[in-house]
Amino acid sequence: MKLTRIPTFEEIKLVHDRIKPYINQTPVMSSTAINEMSGAEIYFKCENFQKVGAFKMRGGANALLALTEEEKAKGVATHSSGNHAQAVALSAKNHNVPAYIVMPENAPSAKRAATEGYGANIITCESTLAARESTLEKVVAETGATFLHPYNNYDVIAGQATCAKEFIEEVPDLEIVMAPVGGGGLMSGTAISTKALLPNAQIIGAEPKWADDAYRSFKSGKMQYNTRVDTIADGLRTNLGEYTFEIISNLVDDIITVSEEEIVAAMRIIWERMKIIIEPSCAVPFAAVLQQKERFVGKKIGIIITGGNVDVNNLPF
Amino acid sequence: MKLTRIPTFEEIKLVHDRIKPYINQTPVMSSTAINEMSGAEIYFKCENFQKVGAFKMRGGANALLALTEEEKAKGVATHSSGNHAQAVALSAKNHNVPAYIVMPENAPSAKRAATEGYGANIITCESTLAARESTLEKVVAETGATFLHPYNNYDVIAGQATCAKEFIEEVPDLEIVMAPVGGGGLMSGTAISTKALLPNAQIIGAEPKWADDAYRSFKSGKMQYNTRVDTIADGLRTNLGEYTFEIISNLVDDIITVSEEEIVAAMRIIWERMKIIIEPSCAVPFAAVLQQKERFVGKKIGIIITGGNVDVNNLPF
Repeated sequence: MKLTRIPTFEEIKLVHDRIKPYINQTPVMSSTAINEMSGAEIYFKCENFQKVGAFKMRGGANALLALTEEEKAKGVATHSSGNHAQAVALSAKNHNVPAYIVMPENAPSAKRAATEGYGANIITCESTLAARESTLEKVVAETGATFLHPYNNYDVIAGQATCAKEFIEEVPDLEIVMAPVGGGGLMSGTAISTKALLPNAQIIGAEPKWADDAYRSFKSGKMQYNTRVDTIADGLRTNLGEYTFEIISNLVDDIITVSEEEIVAAMRIIWERMKIIIEPSCAVPFAAVLQQKERFVGKKIGIIITGGNVDVNNLPF
Repeated sequence: MKLTRIPTFEEIKLVHDRIKPYINQTPVMSSTAINEMSGAEIYFKCENFQKVGAFKMRGGANALLALTEEEKAKGVATHSSGNHAQAVALSAKNHNVPAYIVMPENAPSAKRAATEGYGANIITCESTLAARESTLEKVVAETGATFLHPYNNYDVIAGQATCAKEFIEEVPDLEIVMAPVGGGGLMSGTAISTKALLPNAQIIGAEPKWADDAYRSFKSGKMQYNTRVDTIADGLRTNLGEYTFEIISNLVDDIITVSEEEIVAAMRIIWERMKIIIEPSCAVPFAAVLQQKERFVGKKIGIIITGGNVDVNNLPF
């Protein structure tokens, strides 16, 4: 183990208690139609009903609570395609802390507008990781703000881990727990909480084929990188980080990749059957279940619905 | 009182007990953003999460349970632009009863597909009330099926009334209860249950200006008719019936009308802020709150979200 700061489940319990005033306990939903269609018993943890419309609020809330008074005075900075941006912006607002958010130019307009609505300072850059990182460096140098990495950060991972904890506390006999993999913060937190509470459950990640860095990293044992940033699952375009790669390598049982068409079809089924608005990223684990039906048939599966911040003027159907 | 069969609240309690195995107890949701925007404290009773995706399941389930064995053998028939069709189709399927559904040619495709999915026989007609009624007469004459009117029917009204009952049992101190008005079945049932449980609450209907028959009937004291059938709120294109007009005249405090633009704007806010998929019809009461902000500011308001069956390929934004 190279990592010295993987959050323990004991720490995650403390984190959950301290972020509770700033987050919603989100509902778990299921659908007869979806269970009939898949042959499985699927429970969806609906983080689209989380504050800022995404699970990212958990990590953002925790990261702000971990700051010293001196750090708070200088503010926080981050780069994000959207949901982490909103989570940091609202959490900063909750504590009267200045927020500087670097957003790629292709970030969905609804996410940009909401981030501005929380009073954050937004700095636009090109939609590559390199551009995001160099722009952020400049901002941090100018302001002295603390960089809150969207996923490769102890406090953020510990915050995201509270989602699976809450989920399993409500549905305690899940056989499989699934989440989508972008930077890996949610997947890492999910894996830590699931391993602690349900040591025999399978932990499965799902990823777009067009952004399959985690799949290739997991299979090869070596960090691999995305070569394109255009999957419709805009929350999953980012690459694993050093910490999240380590946690996922150690704790996750498998990663399944799905096509763009499979993502849109799964998203549409969830919209039409469950009547909830979810981002394309959320549909990725359910798309994996539909792709590998025989593997999942008869199983009790928990899927984390990660967020609902879509641009309703720009839908894939 | 001309009406001999207005359901009493005692009867509605019995109805609620008997339909419970066939319906969902739907969640009540609220949104910080929407409360800030309106200055009111709004609770939404989410019948978009009801079976078949709409409150109509309550009336449909009850109407099927009220049939004799002889009636069941011959089947049931109705005309509906969509949600009542699905409710009758699923309820008929639950009891192995044949269902004949007359649908107007402009019914949303998602509603038509779902109705077919429940195994009903669908007969298409022009989208006028006259065409719907004459087509239905033919079907009833040929099959001997029992006509289940979508709203002007004792059992249907009693079923719809269970929605406000359930709502007020969960949020017992509402000051205002609102629902959209189409044929008036939901509004009638809502008024009966609200009057019984919250005698001091205001009961307010909301209607599209383009289908304002209930507003004009309510204000003039005489039944008025819609002259166009093209409001985007496709669930509200129908006219009041004799029973529902009587109940609404006696129990409802006011009806507010809203424009097409107000409906789309309110629908969009609910989609974007609450992350739930609702039909345009559901947005009508919230549009009325936004239109008459001063009247509603500071009030604790219950709004029934009637359904979530939209065609995602044909959205107004």
